Amino acid sequence: MAGRPIMIVSNRGPVSFKRDDAGELVATRGAGGLVSGLAPLVAGTSASWLAAAISDDDRAAVAGEKHRLFEADGLNARLIDLDPDDYRMAYDVVCNATLWFTHHHLFDLARRPRFDDAWWQAWDAYRRVNAAFADEVADDAPPDAAVLVQDYHLCLLGPALADRRPDVRTVHFSHTPFAAPELLAVLPTPARRELLEGLAAHHACGFHSARWAANFVASCEADGITPPPTFVAPLGADAADLEATIATERCQAEGAELDARLAGKRLVLRVDRVELSKNLLRGFHAFDLLLEDHPEWRGEVVFAAFVYPSREGLSDYLSYAQEVDGLVRRLNEKWATPDWTPILYDASDNFPRSVAALQRFDVLLVNPIRDGLNLVAKEGMLVNQRDGLLALSPGAGAWDELGAHALEAHPYDLTGTAEALHRGLSLDGPERRAQSAALREAAAARSPGDWLDDQLRAAP
Amino acid sequence: MAGRPIMIVSNRGPVSFKRDDAGELVATRGAGGLVSGLAPLVAGTSASWLAAAISDDDRAAVAGEKHRLFEADGLNARLIDLDPDDYRMAYDVVCNATLWFTHHHLFDLARRPRFDDAWWQAWDAYRRVNAAFADEVADDAPPDAAVLVQDYHLCLLGPALADRRPDVRTVHFSHTPFAAPELLAVLPTPARRELLEGLAAHHACGFHSARWAANFVASCEADGITPPPTFVAPLGADAADLEATIATERCQAEGAELDARLAGKRLVLRVDRVELSKNLLRGFHAFDLLLEDHPEWRGEVVFAAFVYPSREGLSDYLSYAQEVDGLVRRLNEKWATPDWTPILYDASDNFPRSVAALQRFDVLLVNPIRDGLNLVAKEGMLVNQRDGLLALSPGAGAWDELGAHALEAHPYDLTGTAEALHRGLSLDGPERRAQSAALREAAAARSPGDWLDDQLRAAP
Repeated sequence: MAGRPIMIVSNRGPVSFKRDDAGELVATRGAGGLVSGLAPLVAGTSASWLAAAISDDDRAAVAGEKHRLFEADGLNARLIDLDPDDYRMAYDVVCNATLWFTHHHLFDLARRPRFDDAWWQAWDAYRRVNAAFADEVADDAPPDAAVLVQDYHLCLLGPALADRRPDVRTVHFSHTPFAAPELLAVLPTPARRELLEGLAAHHACGFHSARWAANFVASCEADGITPPPTFVAPLGADAADLEATIATERCQAEGAELDARLAGKRLVLRVDRVELSKNLLRGFHAFDLLLEDHPEWRGEVVFAAFVYPSREGLSDYLSYAQEVDGLVRRLNEKWATPDWTPILYDASDNFPRSVAALQRFDVLLVNPIRDGLNLVAKEGMLVNQRDGLLALSPGAGAWDELGAHALEAHPYDLTGTAEALHRGLSLDGPERRAQSAALREAAAARSPGDWLDDQLRAAP
Repeated sequence: MAGRPIMIVSNRGPVSFKRDDAGELVATRGAGGLVSGLAPLVAGTSASWLAAAISDDDRAAVAGEKHRLFEADGLNARLIDLDPDDYRMAYDVVCNATLWFTHHHLFDLARRPRFDDAWWQAWDAYRRVNAAFADEVADDAPPDAAVLVQDYHLCLLGPALADRRPDVRTVHFSHTPFAAPELLAVLPTPARRELLEGLAAHHACGFHSARWAANFVASCEADGITPPPTFVAPLGADAADLEATIATERCQAEGAELDARLAGKRLVLRVDRVELSKNLLRGFHAFDLLLEDHPEWRGEVVFAAFVYPSREGLSDYLSYAQEVDGLVRRLNEKWATPDWTPILYDASDNFPRSVAALQRFDVLLVNPIRDGLNLVAKEGMLVNQRDGLLALSPGAGAWDELGAHALEAHPYDLTGTAEALHRGLSLDGPERRAQSAALREAAAARSPGDWLDDQLRAAP
């Protein structure tokens, strides 16, 4: 690791608060993939971590101070007390309903977005939230720190820090894809420029895929903004954490139950958040086509979808989840026999069960419309014990590392995806073993530590 | 003009057929912008024109021959008799529901498109229709002809013609935008490659904007396909045709009626097909914001929208037209006074009235999401007599030529568009006259003949 002290800056932090039964505030480990990936890497170091006080309980814990320092898991976590209305507008309207949709190319452009006066007020709130973070970093970052700013919630810190803290090195890392230039231009022109200038003021900007980095650079150049150095640092799967999970009784029991349920049938698996970009609907349609076009698989294969809910407060997500439920029900009604339920759909967010299933798939289906990386593709290949194959969408950042050995699951081509599933179930012998081994090797090539090191190297 | 004989190849031709009252087939001038732009340019030359027999009456006129030659408006028109089911699948499913949506970035990607077995059958039909055109050209093109293939309906002729008629020079011209590479990748991988290889086999490919040409080249390169030479040849407005319309009694009468109706109020105008890419809904929302944020315009300005129906057979278009109707009604209910109806919405397809309105606007609103060129922007500036200004979307190809002098009507930024309208209504004196004159000059810089000459020059 580089010698600079590390400061991580993100929306969600490694600690959050809840009331216990007695009404007392209790610190818990923060949720979310970024936290669970990063926290073990910096635990026990002198790293500090700055994040937002998100819930009312978080704000109560901060207790009216500008921020408050907590010791958690061996690192120093600070939560910033932000104006709740500002935070809500910035997070809901700008981050989730605008930037996330923009980078994932998910707007139905004939009708949305519509940037009106209320949206511009939310953009002002996003500016204020970013400014509050910049103030905290400027005040509290150790001398010469490497400041690692995470994701689309925090794109505007760069200029203020370049101005006020020339001693620190700032790195921005995007966990999402970065929109193609013509789709970044969906943002209002002044907001687009402000976003790009905010990012470009860092010492370096990192992405999971060279494609996302190229989009960022092209957008900067189209607006006459000099891009900063960029780097490509795909996250690696956490092998130690997966092994620890596999060793638990819970995971073993889930595996045994799954074996009993499969009773020797083949397993197609997906593990995803229920979320527009993950493309669940078309995955089930492709499975339907597989059964239509290749009758030999009827009764012989189970499609297990172990999913977990996401953003249930947004009507877009609720209606999508309902469409998914309805489609699964219709397909099971269409195909089921007394001995066979073709789709096993479970939205209960059971991590040990997901890991047990990843050990057992014959084909792992990862068909997102667009995805910053998709860590499940790597995790699945890492733990699988059945020479499983991967049907992967080129829309995932992980395609750059795994695509050469994966079956193409084109996100919109149901016929092509059905054929990929068919091939993934049919291939056998040395060819299958070689392909599975090549995927495993590619999936194991990088660790989470490599990813963190790349960020630090970008801030020399 | 170059010395090669000219053959134009397009979906719609310069002649179509209808039954008269006695049930006899009568030739009429074909409809559509391409035909009305091109036909006068080649009338009276020795050019030939190959197009599809589209309607039952067209097919009856072809009368079972493989094709049939008609003399129309001083040129030789041939209509090809295609299998009606093939034509319908190719035109409805591939051309309009797939390629058109792809190039205009209009898919709601969370749900559409879905390329299933039926779609692949339609793709086969698109191949057969293109092959039938290629056969006709191969059989009938004069020696050494310049073959000018028009638009996304006919992308696959290149390879067959390169093979069978090495003496001819083939040029493909795209009247639409060309999708950004990451959105062209919405097409199934084999279809995307076939489309690009089909286009790349021409001697040159032309576009209305350098941005569309760059997208095509980038897509070829991403797929390892050597792009052909490309050229940028924006169509010019037909000044003579507009002057002839203005001279008609009908246009004069429409103008007088409009003057009476406006009674001295200012005029914001749009003239469009009712169509998803034209962005009518957001145009009316922006006008609503103008009245909200700038009360001085209430009662003082009329927004006339002279539109004409489009693709009424598609449910997407019907529901969009209904949304537009409903929004206009709500806004008129919200703002109207006894003396003032703020929005004058007319979907009656009255060209003389549209031209009369183009002479009279104070601000012309052209805010498409994405548009190959947008000829109305040029036509409007050419005939306007009131130092009118142009509020133009950067999503239109015409932005390349007119953007430097236009007000930016960002297609998604309602607040920005409302401010553009406000500025377009407010600006006065020498600054207004200079800006209007600069727009007029830019709009008059090219003629339809220049556009045709550029295609011929690309086939030397």
